Amino acid sequence: MNRAATGETNGTARPALTELRKRLSDISALNKARDVLSWDQNTYMPVAGAWNRGLHMSVLQRLSHELLVADRTGELLELADEETAHLAGDHPDAQLLAVVGRDYRRNTRIPADFIERLVLHASTAFQAWRAARPADDFERVADHLEKSVDLSREFSSFFAGAAHPADPQIDLADEGFTVATLRPLFARLRSELVALLESLGDLTARGPSPFEQYFAKDEQLQAGLAIAQRFGYDLRRGRLDLAAHPFETSFGVDDVRITTRVDEPDLTECLFSTLHEAGHALYELGIDPHLAGTPLAQGASSGVHESQSRLWENLVGRGRPFWNWAGPMLAQHF
Amino acid sequence: MNRAATGETNGTARPALTELRKRLSDISALNKARDVLSWDQNTYMPVAGAWNRGLHMSVLQRLSHELLVADRTGELLELADEETAHLAGDHPDAQLLAVVGRDYRRNTRIPADFIERLVLHASTAFQAWRAARPADDFERVADHLEKSVDLSREFSSFFAGAAHPADPQIDLADEGFTVATLRPLFARLRSELVALLESLGDLTARGPSPFEQYFAKDEQLQAGLAIAQRFGYDLRRGRLDLAAHPFETSFGVDDVRITTRVDEPDLTECLFSTLHEAGHALYELGIDPHLAGTPLAQGASSGVHESQSRLWENLVGRGRPFWNWAGPMLAQHF
Repeated sequence: MNRAATGETNGTARPALTELRKRLSDISALNKARDVLSWDQNTYMPVAGAWNRGLHMSVLQRLSHELLVADRTGELLELADEETAHLAGDHPDAQLLAVVGRDYRRNTRIPADFIERLVLHASTAFQAWRAARPADDFERVADHLEKSVDLSREFSSFFAGAAHPADPQIDLADEGFTVATLRPLFARLRSELVALLESLGDLTARGPSPFEQYFAKDEQLQAGLAIAQRFGYDLRRGRLDLAAHPFETSFGVDDVRITTRVDEPDLTECLFSTLHEAGHALYELGIDPHLAGTPLAQGASSGVHESQSRLWENLVGRGRPFWNWAGPMLAQHF
Repeated sequence: MNRAATGETNGTARPALTELRKRLSDISALNKARDVLSWDQNTYMPVAGAWNRGLHMSVLQRLSHELLVADRTGELLELADEETAHLAGDHPDAQLLAVVGRDYRRNTRIPADFIERLVLHASTAFQAWRAARPADDFERVADHLEKSVDLSREFSSFFAGAAHPADPQIDLADEGFTVATLRPLFARLRSELVALLESLGDLTARGPSPFEQYFAKDEQLQAGLAIAQRFGYDLRRGRLDLAAHPFETSFGVDDVRITTRVDEPDLTECLFSTLHEAGHALYELGIDPHLAGTPLAQGASSGVHESQSRLWENLVGRGRPFWNWAGPMLAQHF
């Protein structure tokens, strides 16, 4: 049973919160279904299925949006706020209502038809990109990228008062950040990273990398997965597939999948992307099952998510202790 | 573009029909998404994903049901009937309205919560069956089967006046048939088939079958697929995967997938199930793309569907002309 869906905490009946949780569970089901369709589009979908797939994903996204921005959601939020007014701000119910309230206010600014157009465009652009990538054919995606920028500007137009057109997009990924706060952050990182890089001298002078040999595809996949499993990635709750661009996706707290890609003359592509996506997956697999079906059942932000993937990819995966173990293990594989 | 979705025929604006088609397209997207989730559950889903998957499928099915049985659907059906009253009965719009009207009247009898319970049960029972099958462990599924029968009886209870409790279920699969019409049909088939079988004598006396040797799994899959492709099954519009029980599923007119299973000591399991499912797929792949997003975009009935699968499996696949070609081809594979 999904205990979180009962809306009861400490035995207190909260009918508005209960109804709201039911609505959030429906929204979550629509979003997760869209994610399954997207995973399949990236992994196994026959090429001719693209048009219908884009349509179906756009409908799921619009229906999810409509449930979220419905008047009834606003009413339930107000009523549930009253039901929980006596709770401390860090109580799970109070935190849920804060996040749902934010999402509701954000999404009521966005017209449903825009959502549908955006998802349909993303699907069309994805198919064009996947066809163009092997041929390195930028012309095939140029118009799609232009339309992506147009849609991004249209998205920003729903958030009048933003200091910069990118701010509403940034806020979606990392709440509270803006162009104004990120520019000095990146400037400082840039100056420190460039100095660090220069201090390392000419890396190409070190000669050929041991990773640049022929490594058979299936062996690469098995080796990457074996390492991910040692990191704690559990194949009863996940799986590894091939995709044109590696990603991690979660269909629920017990089904968190990763993808990778293989370059047979270079082991690093498959290896480090697998460790990176496994890092994302381990973060998602650690989510409290009680949060399932609510918007709390996801990473805190894109930045925190990326910190987890890079922890495993870089801090672990590029460290000497790791290679003391992984080196002999990989030598056995290849 | 989905021309069928415009609701315009012969240049005549039909606003109710247009709105109804939009609604049907949303319903279709929810149903197709549920089918993708089901395909994934049968093929690639990690075992722990089962609970969430069942929940998500049940929500999609309920939301689809709610869209279909909404008061607005009934209003649109009445208005669209008026808009098309001058059309002949075999006009595509008239036929669409007849089918949607039937589905609306049928589904308004079924409570949404029943739909949700039914799909959740089907998913739970499926997982139990998949675990029980390798061990041939009937006890593990007995309770689930009992609940399936209970739910079937509950389903029938929504259709007061049926002469037999199975009639509403039969009508879903093959409209117009009932226990009363099927019993004499099966009785005649039985007497003719038993006589035919007896006339063939003792088949086991013919010695071991050439199909009962060791055939490697991947080779079996490739051989079955090669034959399906010669039948016309196009991998740009489909694909073959492994599943515990073979099935065909359609995610749209250009994405119709089949599954099979392999028994390495017996070629017939994989071979004939692949030909059978390819037959279902060829039928679905022949659907007029203009019907996409409506309930007309499916087989006429279960009986007609099965006639297509058995046409390819049996009339073609067990005939001498086929084996004159397939025999040497398979000898090359193995």
